[in-house]
Amino acid sequence: MEPLIRPVYFKQDRLYVLDQTLLPEKEVYLEINSIEEAVEAIKELKVRGAPALGIAAAYSFLLGIKDYLDSEGAILRRGREVKNILEASRPTAVNLFWALNRMYLKLEQLVSKNITGGELYSSLKAEADLILEEDLNASRRMFASFLNLVPDGLSLKVLTHCNTGALATGGLGTALGVIRALHEKGKVSHVYATETRPLLQGARLTAWELEKYGIPYNVITDSAAAYLIFQGKVDAVIVGADRVASNYDTANKIGTLSLAVAAKFCNVPFFVVCPETTLDPETSEGSEIKIELRSGAEIGLFNGKKIVPDPEKCLNYAFDVTPAEFITAIVTDQRIVKLKEIQW
Amino acid sequence: MEPLIRPVYFKQDRLYVLDQTLLPEKEVYLEINSIEEAVEAIKELKVRGAPALGIAAAYSFLLGIKDYLDSEGAILRRGREVKNILEASRPTAVNLFWALNRMYLKLEQLVSKNITGGELYSSLKAEADLILEEDLNASRRMFASFLNLVPDGLSLKVLTHCNTGALATGGLGTALGVIRALHEKGKVSHVYATETRPLLQGARLTAWELEKYGIPYNVITDSAAAYLIFQGKVDAVIVGADRVASNYDTANKIGTLSLAVAAKFCNVPFFVVCPETTLDPETSEGSEIKIELRSGAEIGLFNGKKIVPDPEKCLNYAFDVTPAEFITAIVTDQRIVKLKEIQW
Repeated sequence: MEPLIRPVYFKQDRLYVLDQTLLPEKEVYLEINSIEEAVEAIKELKVRGAPALGIAAAYSFLLGIKDYLDSEGAILRRGREVKNILEASRPTAVNLFWALNRMYLKLEQLVSKNITGGELYSSLKAEADLILEEDLNASRRMFASFLNLVPDGLSLKVLTHCNTGALATGGLGTALGVIRALHEKGKVSHVYATETRPLLQGARLTAWELEKYGIPYNVITDSAAAYLIFQGKVDAVIVGADRVASNYDTANKIGTLSLAVAAKFCNVPFFVVCPETTLDPETSEGSEIKIELRSGAEIGLFNGKKIVPDPEKCLNYAFDVTPAEFITAIVTDQRIVKLKEIQW
Repeated sequence: MEPLIRPVYFKQDRLYVLDQTLLPEKEVYLEINSIEEAVEAIKELKVRGAPALGIAAAYSFLLGIKDYLDSEGAILRRGREVKNILEASRPTAVNLFWALNRMYLKLEQLVSKNITGGELYSSLKAEADLILEEDLNASRRMFASFLNLVPDGLSLKVLTHCNTGALATGGLGTALGVIRALHEKGKVSHVYATETRPLLQGARLTAWELEKYGIPYNVITDSAAAYLIFQGKVDAVIVGADRVASNYDTANKIGTLSLAVAAKFCNVPFFVVCPETTLDPETSEGSEIKIELRSGAEIGLFNGKKIVPDPEKCLNYAFDVTPAEFITAIVTDQRIVKLKEIQW
């Protein structure tokens, strides 16, 4: 499957990112020519989603060192500097650190072989292209695995949470990408997208992608999901993950647990789709995962208008942890972890 | 207990309603002198909540007939006219119909006794005052019952949904009123208020009341409730009801079911507090309750800004139905329906 949406791409020595803060109202690509512009785009969440951030960081690294290609003395120093500046833009984004590390190691390797100038640039560009291509291929492997899980003849109504689509990745996505792939094969007929408070990624971004893909859908409030599930209107829940512990407890966007509990009560299969790298062998169970508490203003302010008496009194957990017992299967680019029998 | 907030009151022949659309930013009372102004306030949700609407309608009836008190021929015709106009302002509001019916019957009774002029006016005003007083007393009886349910020495962290406080009633409330009463006796130490999408009654109104009462609280997104419950941070869930079937399945604001399912999983007691009149003997079970589907724009537009590509694709259920098996007890002004043992 090919991407229909390109949230991050590099063309004629320029980085382009689709400004996600303007969606769904306006579809505007930012042209990025410097690491300063890249840092601004990352800080202001114009580009978001772990894989998309990694890809944007890799190309931004290239922009940052391109004026130092012939200076054998300065190039490594500049490489470290660029890496540090970009890392500081979003200090909790693991993929960003990973991609910058990879680019810097590649730079070291090339410099140690005395490669400079145009050849150095094109080799580093090839590395960034590879990061993007690997992300797309990882998505394709998730899709192939998931397609095999769903028997022919089924046409599912699925529920998803937050945005785990093209916009969060190199252009194909994880959970939402799977939904697109299933729809292309006639295995998904309808999607319920939760709006995903407080930042509304479901309402703003997932709905926008579903429009592009021509998949029938409804946006619902997060709290309406249980009612739809209890009414038998949902055949499967498919979500992404931020971190999976080695016992398969899964941290994901706040609200995921609520969906999992309702699904469990109604015997609706509950799937997690994520790259194998999201599985963290260092974390033995969910209770060890530190949950980020974000600013209450994300809940209490909307477009600058106060919707609560005191935004400081909003308690804003970014993620929650879904115990493995609520999960039917975890599908990665490398394997399917079946935690229970799938009852369609 | 006395009201601290008066959402609807009548003074010197004028009706005053606290404009709830301006909360929590501004605390403005509207002075209402005619049924036209009353209809506007009701239509624009400046006054809301079933009991509050009934009380506002009763006083509005008085405003509507006050120029016809001496006209024996016209007073009943005018009474019917006023009743029809006010009923049309919010055709699904049962309490509004009930209160107008009561006022009209009282008018008929008084007219049949040849009572006119000032005596007619003061008798009708007394009837409206009685509707308000009865509402306050019903709240007080709910509070007394609930206080008995909670053993001395417990200081609960409770979670509530939507607004079921002073603002929705004559000034004391149902579920949120119970929480205030429990807090006064030291039996509640903290409240988690769900923001309650799409109309944010929890964020805007419940939080505002909790500030007034000086009760420690946090506003959370609706979808974060399950995570708090699973972390053991919630000792009880206390909500209101829109309609209770005779098997005790309960229709309430969308999102209630989701809270009930999480509470059930974690053995957290789940209480419904409502007037006895909310129990509907005509409805045998929850599946018979027709759930209002409201405009998708309530989800998809915020302050006129589009937060989805297409508001028509938002599916906006106003209520959901919580099966009786998820409910620990229903507390009304007349009885406690204990559906299971309370495990504090």
